[in-house]
Amino acid sequence: MKATVITIGDEILIGQIVDTNSAWIGQQLSDIGIKLYEIISCGDNAEQITSAIDRARANSDVVIMTGGLGPTKDDITKNTLVSYFNTTLELNEELWERMKQIFEKRGLQVLEMNRSQAMIPKDSTMLPNQRGTAQGMWFERDGKVFISLPGVPHEMKHLMSAQVIPRLNERFTFPTIVHRTIMTAGAGESIIAQKLSEFENNLPANFKLAYLPNLGIVRLRLTAHGTNGDLARQADELEFKLVEVLGDLVYARTDEKLEVVIGKLLRENNATLSCAESCTGGYIAHLLTSVPGSSTYFEGSLVTYSYDVKEKLLGVKNSTLNTVGAVSEECVREMLSGLLQKTETTYGIAVSGIAGPGGATPDKPVGTVWIAVGNSEKMVAKRYQFFPGRSENIKVFSYTALNMLRLFMAGKW
Amino acid sequence: MKATVITIGDEILIGQIVDTNSAWIGQQLSDIGIKLYEIISCGDNAEQITSAIDRARANSDVVIMTGGLGPTKDDITKNTLVSYFNTTLELNEELWERMKQIFEKRGLQVLEMNRSQAMIPKDSTMLPNQRGTAQGMWFERDGKVFISLPGVPHEMKHLMSAQVIPRLNERFTFPTIVHRTIMTAGAGESIIAQKLSEFENNLPANFKLAYLPNLGIVRLRLTAHGTNGDLARQADELEFKLVEVLGDLVYARTDEKLEVVIGKLLRENNATLSCAESCTGGYIAHLLTSVPGSSTYFEGSLVTYSYDVKEKLLGVKNSTLNTVGAVSEECVREMLSGLLQKTETTYGIAVSGIAGPGGATPDKPVGTVWIAVGNSEKMVAKRYQFFPGRSENIKVFSYTALNMLRLFMAGKW
Repeated sequence: MKATVITIGDEILIGQIVDTNSAWIGQQLSDIGIKLYEIISCGDNAEQITSAIDRARANSDVVIMTGGLGPTKDDITKNTLVSYFNTTLELNEELWERMKQIFEKRGLQVLEMNRSQAMIPKDSTMLPNQRGTAQGMWFERDGKVFISLPGVPHEMKHLMSAQVIPRLNERFTFPTIVHRTIMTAGAGESIIAQKLSEFENNLPANFKLAYLPNLGIVRLRLTAHGTNGDLARQADELEFKLVEVLGDLVYARTDEKLEVVIGKLLRENNATLSCAESCTGGYIAHLLTSVPGSSTYFEGSLVTYSYDVKEKLLGVKNSTLNTVGAVSEECVREMLSGLLQKTETTYGIAVSGIAGPGGATPDKPVGTVWIAVGNSEKMVAKRYQFFPGRSENIKVFSYTALNMLRLFMAGKW
Repeated sequence: MKATVITIGDEILIGQIVDTNSAWIGQQLSDIGIKLYEIISCGDNAEQITSAIDRARANSDVVIMTGGLGPTKDDITKNTLVSYFNTTLELNEELWERMKQIFEKRGLQVLEMNRSQAMIPKDSTMLPNQRGTAQGMWFERDGKVFISLPGVPHEMKHLMSAQVIPRLNERFTFPTIVHRTIMTAGAGESIIAQKLSEFENNLPANFKLAYLPNLGIVRLRLTAHGTNGDLARQADELEFKLVEVLGDLVYARTDEKLEVVIGKLLRENNATLSCAESCTGGYIAHLLTSVPGSSTYFEGSLVTYSYDVKEKLLGVKNSTLNTVGAVSEECVREMLSGLLQKTETTYGIAVSGIAGPGGATPDKPVGTVWIAVGNSEKMVAKRYQFFPGRSENIKVFSYTALNMLRLFMAGKW
């Protein structure tokens, strides 16, 4: 089974937007066992769209198109499909009534332009869109399937999940595919690969392991293809083995962010957290507060960027800053003590380092960071060394600090 | 002049990475007057690559390929091009010597695999890559140009800017294109469009105005096509008019981030800044500290997420929190006073709002935010109302606060 994705829109070609739809669709299709043959992005132009569909039709069994379904003049996908499949449009009365009601409720005037969105090609199946006024369409010709979806990402995703994937599963028979995702923090890709070399050598031929590293986090994806009914059990066993080998590096066995896992741990323990951030400049607080409901366990962060504020707000000693400097074990320990005294939270994190490009010294190159985590009873501190790249360092430092807290809370430090 | 971009790599098709290269290339080409006809993403497979090049060749004058130039087995773009153009590889001795030296310096062993990267197709022009070991290649056939670049974004961008764009400009004659970018903050796209309706109605036919809105910021792009030597002067005049109409909404006349402009303003005035953040959770501090060198003007941020920390660290009155609540004019004014007392910076920003999804009340829906900015002499506060969407609100609130500071510093408040 092969598929082609066609993303339609002039804004893609002039680089005004990055097409993220096709990667997402590629993932979803690969999850059910459909291989993407190609992605084509073309302009809002009937000839170009037609030519792209011709090519897709020759190379694949399923063609998924996104974009060009809006109510304005430049949205021509629907009319192009009507001529391509040699059919006509007819008004879907039910849909039109529903649309009018929605507009009325919102106190908006219904325009003739909107009526065109209730027109559906005759021999197509309408895929109802609960998130917008552009409906999805499903055509079949010579055993091949052609699907047209709106380009707005959250509408497209809703239609893929609620309509396209279930219908594809019903229409075709796929080989069984099983996925397992394991999230790790605390080691780079190469160290993990080394630890897993025996595991990988003994991996059955129908299993694949993919590494997806991203700034302090490595996501592992175990995929099994087969027709065998035991596939899920076999995957469970392999996942168990893999987790055993990696031990404390594993922080979750589903695709979850570290800040979400930390939040759950704090909530389970009725504990609270605050931070003292220098070089991470508020990014740890941003990660933690990006999780809805984080106010139940996160109290705040003192982003102390200057020496002055480190002294005034956290009580870091002037002598520490002027002898060993801000990027030192002494400094992060004093930051953490000061923080816990001020905020009285259960746990605290303190970070001070050199994100770059400036600020390096011979013994503290760019990428050096000191992190302390602890509570009122115990405090641990460690120096790490990462690489150049300011924005990358800010992120890696932040995830490393959250991971230190995770291990500290688990008594692994 | 038309072009096709072909991005090569299995990881794109299974959605492991989002192809950002093609959008960036589309922008660059459009800037010099080349229209992108299509983007094709295909797998690391000779047959698929060949078929994509055939299609691109039929539809365009310039074909730019990225990816598949690494040293490993699955990188087959170079060999595919060698067969496609019916040529052979030869060792570039100079390049090979340079590569060996680099490896030696880094204390790494040179592998046979690396030697293959010093092999260049006979009748192609090598585009030297200063950022990596995969060189770019430029082929010409029947007046059409075929360019192959590495897929790593920073290497691709380096080669596009240093080699491809200058060579295309030399090889072809393009109509003159002039661009102007104007950055605005403080009003949405529709308000700006309303203000500019007369301006747009009077825009000469060879000028286009594009709106690129992004969470609190609207970037305007004025593009002029023509052969007329006066184009630049005409663009200057129109830019001047546009800036006049928009007035204080304009914060920069080049493509600059608001946090960078704020940094320049503070530096010019020898002034310092600190923040007191509630709902933005450290994001304002993150924006400010993402700018290298920000430590010269940014002292820190007190991310006071809980009531408790607002009282302890900023001296917000318990009575304020328990009567009018944290999302109130009183609270942000007390936060700002407390902040300036503690940090003694020239300027301060205080923000408290409801990012959502929880925390709303009937008179304070999700998207409500109070922002105060000021110095030791004067303080202003304002309530804004945005829409649902936690992560979007965090960003819009942050940019709105920075924009309030910009106007305050300019004496416009």
